[in-house]
Amino acid sequence: MISVGIVGGTGYTGVELLRLLLKHRQVRVDVLTSRTEAGKPVADMFPSLRGHTDLAFSDLDLNVLKQCDVVFFATPHGVAMKHAAELIAANTKVIDLAADFRLQNLQQFEKWYGMAHSCPDILKDAVYGLSELNRERIQSAMVIGNPGCYPTTVQLGLAPLLKSAQALIKPESIIIDAKSGVSGAGRKASLGMIYSENADNFKAYAVAGHRHHPEIVEALEGISGQQGVFNDLVFVPHLVPMIRGMLSTIYVDLTDEAATLDVQALYEAFYQHETFVDVMPEGSSPETRSVRGANQLRIALYKPSPKKLIILSAQDNLVKGAAGQAIQNMNIMFKFAEDEGLAGIGLLP
Amino acid sequence: MISVGIVGGTGYTGVELLRLLLKHRQVRVDVLTSRTEAGKPVADMFPSLRGHTDLAFSDLDLNVLKQCDVVFFATPHGVAMKHAAELIAANTKVIDLAADFRLQNLQQFEKWYGMAHSCPDILKDAVYGLSELNRERIQSAMVIGNPGCYPTTVQLGLAPLLKSAQALIKPESIIIDAKSGVSGAGRKASLGMIYSENADNFKAYAVAGHRHHPEIVEALEGISGQQGVFNDLVFVPHLVPMIRGMLSTIYVDLTDEAATLDVQALYEAFYQHETFVDVMPEGSSPETRSVRGANQLRIALYKPSPKKLIILSAQDNLVKGAAGQAIQNMNIMFKFAEDEGLAGIGLLP
Amino acid sequence: MISVGIVGGTGYTGVELLRLLLKHRQVRVDVLTSRTEAGKPVADMFPSLRGHTDLAFSDLDLNVLKQCDVVFFATPHGVAMKHAAELIAANTKVIDLAADFRLQNLQQFEKWYGMAHSCPDILKDAVYGLSELNRERIQSAMVIGNPGCYPTTVQLGLAPLLKSAQALIKPESIIIDAKSGVSGAGRKASLGMIYSENADNFKAYAVAGHRHHPEIVEALEGISGQQGVFNDLVFVPHLVPMIRGMLSTIYVDLTDEAATLDVQALYEAFYQHETFVDVMPEGSSPETRSVRGANQLRIALYKPSPKKLIILSAQDNLVKGAAGQAIQNMNIMFKFAEDEGLAGIGLLP
Amino acid sequence: MISVGIVGGTGYTGVELLRLLLKHRQVRVDVLTSRTEAGKPVADMFPSLRGHTDLAFSDLDLNVLKQCDVVFFATPHGVAMKHAAELIAANTKVIDLAADFRLQNLQQFEKWYGMAHSCPDILKDAVYGLSELNRERIQSAMVIGNPGCYPTTVQLGLAPLLKSAQALIKPESIIIDAKSGVSGAGRKASLGMIYSENADNFKAYAVAGHRHHPEIVEALEGISGQQGVFNDLVFVPHLVPMIRGMLSTIYVDLTDEAATLDVQALYEAFYQHETFVDVMPEGSSPETRSVRGANQLRIALYKPSPKKLIILSAQDNLVKGAAGQAIQNMNIMFKFAEDEGLAGIGLLP
Repeated sequence: MISVGIVGGTGYTGVELLRLLLKHRQVRVDVLTSRTEAGKPVADMFPSLRGHTDLAFSDLDLNVLKQCDVVFFATPHGVAMKHAAELIAANTKVIDLAADFRLQNLQQFEKWYGMAHSCPDILKDAVYGLSELNRERIQSAMVIGNPGCYPTTVQLGLAPLLKSAQALIKPESIIIDAKSGVSGAGRKASLGMIYSENADNFKAYAVAGHRHHPEIVEALEGISGQQGVFNDLVFVPHLVPMIRGMLSTIYVDLTDEAATLDVQALYEAFYQHETFVDVMPEGSSPETRSVRGANQLRIALYKPSPKKLIILSAQDNLVKGAAGQAIQNMNIMFKFAEDEGLAGIGLLP
Repeated sequence: MISVGIVGGTGYTGVELLRLLLKHRQVRVDVLTSRTEAGKPVADMFPSLRGHTDLAFSDLDLNVLKQCDVVFFATPHGVAMKHAAELIAANTKVIDLAADFRLQNLQQFEKWYGMAHSCPDILKDAVYGLSELNRERIQSAMVIGNPGCYPTTVQLGLAPLLKSAQALIKPESIIIDAKSGVSGAGRKASLGMIYSENADNFKAYAVAGHRHHPEIVEALEGISGQQGVFNDLVFVPHLVPMIRGMLSTIYVDLTDEAATLDVQALYEAFYQHETFVDVMPEGSSPETRSVRGANQLRIALYKPSPKKLIILSAQDNLVKGAAGQAIQNMNIMFKFAEDEGLAGIGLLP
Repeated sequence: MISVGIVGGTGYTGVELLRLLLKHRQVRVDVLTSRTEAGKPVADMFPSLRGHTDLAFSDLDLNVLKQCDVVFFATPHGVAMKHAAELIAANTKVIDLAADFRLQNLQQFEKWYGMAHSCPDILKDAVYGLSELNRERIQSAMVIGNPGCYPTTVQLGLAPLLKSAQALIKPESIIIDAKSGVSGAGRKASLGMIYSENADNFKAYAVAGHRHHPEIVEALEGISGQQGVFNDLVFVPHLVPMIRGMLSTIYVDLTDEAATLDVQALYEAFYQHETFVDVMPEGSSPETRSVRGANQLRIALYKPSPKKLIILSAQDNLVKGAAGQAIQNMNIMFKFAEDEGLAGIGLLP
Repeated sequence: MISVGIVGGTGYTGVELLRLLLKHRQVRVDVLTSRTEAGKPVADMFPSLRGHTDLAFSDLDLNVLKQCDVVFFATPHGVAMKHAAELIAANTKVIDLAADFRLQNLQQFEKWYGMAHSCPDILKDAVYGLSELNRERIQSAMVIGNPGCYPTTVQLGLAPLLKSAQALIKPESIIIDAKSGVSGAGRKASLGMIYSENADNFKAYAVAGHRHHPEIVEALEGISGQQGVFNDLVFVPHLVPMIRGMLSTIYVDLTDEAATLDVQALYEAFYQHETFVDVMPEGSSPETRSVRGANQLRIALYKPSPKKLIILSAQDNLVKGAAGQAIQNMNIMFKFAEDEGLAGIGLLP
């Protein structure tokens, strides 16, 4: 039984961490901080938790957090990097669900997040927490940069191709048409987020540039070991009138070597031992509701012509795209069964 | 052709007024003010208006507004009463879609809206704009207090009973279980209004007290001519995960005199000449989508036992419950055909 | 570990039983029948189950079902009563989620379900499975009639008042304004159920009469021990554009004895030992999303005047209103911990 | 004033035709047929029409339809081609909203619609009703094949590029990632269409092949005058949990000639005289709600790199994607003002 702290428990990733961690048999959530709600029982804010916890929000106190074995940051960008040094000095591991430890490229970080990085040294040792792809390094990490939701769908959607010894795809051809439920924008009072602005509506957003674009590029470079080849990658996110759920439809041009490749077999082999990545049978279409509330990503593949491949990659943005993967990383770091606390079945309908 | 001004055009009642007025053949919208968006073309904010108007927001300037024949206030409570005196002095009529001119009872106004009334004299002459019930007084009014959305469903739902020479219902028995789409809360950045807090969810709200309660009580007193008998009236509003639409399910106990009454015939006779009130055939259930975007209120009646009556009363909260009725009142005031600009058919599906 | 069978696994209560039972540590689902899908893996129909079960649908074979310790019927009305005799003869318990064993009044059953009852003797011994109210009889039952969804909200909403030694409410005054998500209508191809007919819409339905009305009346008679006093009860169901969730807003007139009663305290005391009934603090409003996917019913109370009481009663219609309560009954019958398999936290947002 | 008939008025395109035509000042809808509902007033089926028409459904009678100046077929595929010959012989024009007169390629028609074409001669003279692109031929047509909804977004989205004298795009690079509201699937009892299967969910469908694919290819060949170059075009439709609305996100590779092209200016010039095609300013994102109920298609353009172009093309699938464009074609055929009956403003919110 380890002791867990959560910094920033009033957002959607915060309450999702709680929903999952309160049923995890090897952790005890001891601390839950909020700048604005100190003293308030968390179940007063999230009545779904009534009867499941007596935890109340407290002010952020590093001396208290240092008693924890691991602290999750479910905060705005820039908070985790302020406190990481002190926590790891006290041997408390850090899992940041914001962007502070995702990008190794400091200029990109500064450009997209509008702030200088305050602890580049820690960043250098931090591990990017795409669990299935970086499992070994995660095991011994002190600081995890938990991946963005869109980048998770893209990396798991492309990894089998990029990890191949052969060049199977043309990197400059990658087009990611991504769609997300509204909860991805977080729990904050914003005109653009209100019900009547989003229901019964569909649109693209951030077409001219989205923060997850450089994260995707850097991650694909890491996976493939090839620098600079993904600069023409196109990424267009869209907003779907649903609460949870994310689907990336990824289009790639195959190389001549890949024209006769059995991609279905390639993917099935690549993920055969992965609990949380489901390569669906040919002809399937992963629905976001099939993973609603579950730490699961489902993939389906289509080859409309010998030279083209379509990859459908679906997840719950708050689970495999955020809180679930963060807990998966914690399980790896503490050598718990990787699916402990994460074996729930998606809520369908 | 009259000249129209709209104060506060950035909210949902503002854009709804524009949607309707831009197709009205006897008005020209000359002024559209906004505290925050002066200079911005309204179609930049509401792209549905692109191609239909070149109007831009301007700062509120009374000298400009006084050139108008009528000014609509689609503003927060308290704005219209600040400017009404000067406008009517210039012979400009005022239609307030907020609450400033709804309640004649000043104490109730102050209690529920948290401000003293600044022009009780004007209020005294203002007319409550429930078009079908106060048509005659509206014709000659200078200031209209446009009814709240819930009160409109209740008044039109109960008027045939309350206007009867006989006592048909027990006023202390009235229960109003009301349900509204989220647009009723307006267009503002509020945590409680965001998509992920409202979609796939249902709840009651303001059960302990809602601003429309005193308005309903005062209005029913006016319709029935009976003071003080509606004090036990119960009103519970609920929030429905839909954009537009409102249904009030009204329960009343009938008096012995009414036990054998043909209420269906009573209602059909009462509303036989009303374009915008539809008494549906027995056995019907008015769906909110049947009036989506239309200035229409539909009623159905059920008598589960000789002593009880159920009245279903449905409208689009932004049209018959707000902007549409405001324009209906303008049509009455300026002796236009009452349905000019309001003859649109509901958008179904 | 007991052996469980499910007859009719292709509907929403079927898949919900599976979602919950596959994580229940003391049962093994051995049989899952379908008239139309025999041979098909259930995860092919419900991809949310992929990776969680290899179970395939089979034809209904009584010899196989008789090997089970308990069989759930998630079937249309009339199926369970055909097979109950043979199953209980084999010492297999039966939990019917349809209406075959809900109503003891045979005429009412025949009137509302359009068929004669085929085993009145078994019905006589069957127990109505409102877990909290009939726990003792459920323990030793061979056949459970699992309550309807609306009746569950009403019974738990009114039981503390009706079980009191004093007469606290006027039974003829009860008005139930109930609202349900669309999943309550089941998983079937029906024009009235399609997305574009239900989204962004709200309406009452079955106002002239609903099958749950006689069930509510009979159940309240049983709880209160008073026959014939609930005949004037009014029940109006409404359809909400959401998948899961149910809220009943119940209005009652209090007797003079109850005018000074602390109803909040009464309810809290009545349910103090109940895991699955949550009496919320004064001023609360139970949101359906707070119980999404959870076997939980939440209640809040309002007393708008000394003589009137409003009870808000919310649940997930598929869980506490169907599959969850069925499993709760199974837990009671087999002396498992009552919350085994039912301790999940609601999915919010 | 012309006389109009509608064959098949019980679907969503049928009621949408009625919503628009009942307000059209130069037509009178005289006939409305239904195989199943003859005798029933249409307002009994679609209560939004109550008060706007007394029209009742009738059986299909060609002698009656031949009295009409024009007949719209809002029927399943295969109905219009049965009756077209007799109608045009009587000088009655035909506008088919199904696929009978869309594809000139008979083999493609037979392959995708599963039936032989019964009147290839009439097909040869039929005009594909993409109003903006084929206006001249539409003027004198006797039979119109009204375009599919997806193909409308794609053709108007690509026409300025394909009509250019220079080769601006690489036709083999075209990727269309399209998203539609659920009403596109029509009004029919189908399990896949029910609310609980579609709400709060997102998925791709028909990835392996969709009927609109050959229509898109044939249409682009027609626009560009180039045969056989669009065979590698990729088209993936997705289903959005909303009623109305369609957005196609189109990705194309630009040729070297086009690298420095001002595409924004090209599009603005191309559509400068078109009422129903709106090229939005740079940086815009067309929301489907901005055209809800309106006969409008909005386009925005992004050039993420000199060689790539993203085209966002949004419409209401039932209006510009079906009934609205059909009426636009009628207006052209009968030399009415092209926007008569089609000048309504989108319903936002």
